[in-house]
Amino acid sequence: MNAIKKLFDIEFPIIQAGMVWCSGWRLASAVSNAGGLGLIGAGSMYPDVLREHIKKCRLATSKPFGVNVPLLYPDIDQVFEILAEERIQIVFTSAGDPSKWTPSLKENKMKVVHVIANKKFALKAEQSGVDAIVAEGFEAGGHNGREETTTLCLVPEICETVGIPVIAAGGIGSGKAMLAAMALGAEGVQVGSAFAASVESSAHENFKKAILNSGEGDTKLSMKTLIPVRLMKNDFFHRVEKAEAGGATRAELLELLGRGRAKKGMFEGDLSEGELEIGQVASGIREIKPAAIILQGMWQEFIAEKERISNLSF
Amino acid sequence: MNAIKKLFDIEFPIIQAGMVWCSGWRLASAVSNAGGLGLIGAGSMYPDVLREHIKKCRLATSKPFGVNVPLLYPDIDQVFEILAEERIQIVFTSAGDPSKWTPSLKENKMKVVHVIANKKFALKAEQSGVDAIVAEGFEAGGHNGREETTTLCLVPEICETVGIPVIAAGGIGSGKAMLAAMALGAEGVQVGSAFAASVESSAHENFKKAILNSGEGDTKLSMKTLIPVRLMKNDFFHRVEKAEAGGATRAELLELLGRGRAKKGMFEGDLSEGELEIGQVASGIREIKPAAIILQGMWQEFIAEKERISNLSF
Repeated sequence: MNAIKKLFDIEFPIIQAGMVWCSGWRLASAVSNAGGLGLIGAGSMYPDVLREHIKKCRLATSKPFGVNVPLLYPDIDQVFEILAEERIQIVFTSAGDPSKWTPSLKENKMKVVHVIANKKFALKAEQSGVDAIVAEGFEAGGHNGREETTTLCLVPEICETVGIPVIAAGGIGSGKAMLAAMALGAEGVQVGSAFAASVESSAHENFKKAILNSGEGDTKLSMKTLIPVRLMKNDFFHRVEKAEAGGATRAELLELLGRGRAKKGMFEGDLSEGELEIGQVASGIREIKPAAIILQGMWQEFIAEKERISNLSF
Repeated sequence: MNAIKKLFDIEFPIIQAGMVWCSGWRLASAVSNAGGLGLIGAGSMYPDVLREHIKKCRLATSKPFGVNVPLLYPDIDQVFEILAEERIQIVFTSAGDPSKWTPSLKENKMKVVHVIANKKFALKAEQSGVDAIVAEGFEAGGHNGREETTTLCLVPEICETVGIPVIAAGGIGSGKAMLAAMALGAEGVQVGSAFAASVESSAHENFKKAILNSGEGDTKLSMKTLIPVRLMKNDFFHRVEKAEAGGATRAELLELLGRGRAKKGMFEGDLSEGELEIGQVASGIREIKPAAIILQGMWQEFIAEKERISNLSF
C-alpha cells in the first residue's frame, strides 16, 4: 500500500499545502472530506485564530487533517501548545530547523512532516525523527530554497538521500505532474496553487481572479537578498526587483517590504501593493473550482495517465 | 510507434543535446551508434571546422545524426550552406527566430526541430513548419529562457499548445526523469549534462572532473541582464553575480564577460576564469562513462521504472 495513504490514513496521496491567507478550516476540511489531506496554514494566524480554525475544521470533517507550522513563527511555543491541547495528530513544519521541535511533537504522538528544498535539511529532518519529507522545488509558490533546485531535479536526489517517504511539491497541479512526481520516486504530492484558487480558499476574490488571468512567466522568485519567495509580478514585485537590481541592502529591502504585505495582497485583494505568493502552475489554472472537484480531477487524470504510460510501446 | 523514433529513424527517443565545446563528431557518432540521436554542436565551430566534424561523423557512424545550430551564429548563411552541401538531414535550431530559416531548410528536405522555452516561440516554430519542438526548462545548462519556467511546468503547457511532437529538455539525466517527461506528454528527451561528462565529450578533463565534483546548488542562472545562462559557480560566476547585484549595466557586463570565456572554461579547462555551462543534474553525475553506457543505462532505468509505475496500486 502507498506509504503516504497509510501514514495519514487517507484515500488519495494528495496533500493540500498549508498556505498563508488561503488555507483555513474551510479549505482543509473540504480537501480532507474529499479523501486528501487538508492542512490548516498556521503561518497567517494568531494563536487564538488558529485554535478557532482547528475547532471548526473538526466540526466540518471527521477525516484526518493537519496543521502547517512555519518554524519561524513568533509565538511558536504557544502554537505547539495549542496543537497538543487540541489533540492535532498531523503536523507539517517548514521554514526552520526540524531538530528543535520534532522530538517533542513525536512525544505527543503526532505524525510530523518537514518541508525542505535541499539534501542537508532532508537529512537533518530524517535524523530528527520526522515521518516523511516534503521536497519542494523552485517552481513552488511562496518561500523557496536558495539552491533554486527544481522539483524534477530535487525529488530523485532527496529520494536517494533519505529512507523515509518523500512527498513532492512545486509545479504539481495536475494528474500528469503527479504521475511525473511518482516516476521520480515520490510517494505523494503536495498541491498549493491549485487549491489557493479553489472555492473554499480564504484568498480574496481579486487574488483568485488574478491567478486565473496569469500567464506564462507571470511569477518570479523574488527577495533573494532576504528569504527567496515566488511572487506574482505586480507593482510591488517590480519595485522590489528594481531595488534589488540597483544593489539595495537588506535593510532597504526590509523597509520596502514593510509589514502585512502578504495579507494586503492575498487576503485583502490589493493586487498592486500586496505580496501575491503563487507557483508557476498558476498559468495553467483557468477556473475557480471546489476543492473536491480539483482533487477528483487530479486523481482521475493521474490514473488515466498511469494507464497511458503503462501501455506505451517503443 | 513513438513519434520521435519514427521522425529520426532511431532506436530510442533519446537525443544528445548539441552543446558548445562538448559535442563534436566523437560524441555525436557514439550516441547515434548506440541507438540515440547524436547532434554536432555547431555553436562553437567555425564553418570549416563544422564541415570537418560532419565528414568525420559520417565516417564514424552509418546511423542518423544531426547538427544543432544556434540562430545567432555570426556566419549563419555559410553554416546552412555547408549543411545542405553535406546533405545533413536533421537540424536542431535554437536561440533565435525559427520563421526566418525553417522554410528554406524544409525545402532542402531536412527534418527541423527548434528549441524553445516558452509558448510564444513554440507556436512560432510550429507555424514555421518545424517537425518537432524541444521544450527546455530552467534547470537546463547553458542558455535559457527569461520566464524561468521549469521542465515540469513547461512541458505540459507546450504539449497543450502545439500539435507536433515535443521533446523535453532540462533536468533529464536518468531513466526516472525520462519517464517523468513522458508522463508530462513529451515523446522524447534531450540530454545535455550527462553527455557533457561522457568519455567522448570534447570538454576538457578539468571540466568533466568539475562536473563529477559538483553538488547541489552548484549551478545558477546567471547573466540575466544579457542572455540568461546556467553556469557552474566559480570565480568568474561570482564576479558576474557581484556585478549584477551591484547594479552593473549591460555594457559593464559585456566588458566583464569579454571574449572566449566558454572556450576557456569548457575546452581549455580554466575552472576559475572560464564560463562553465552545465545543468542542475550535474550534481547527480558521479562517473565519466562512455556515451553508449549512459544511453543504455538511461533506457534500462526508463523501462524498469515504467514497469514499477504500471504496477503501483493504491
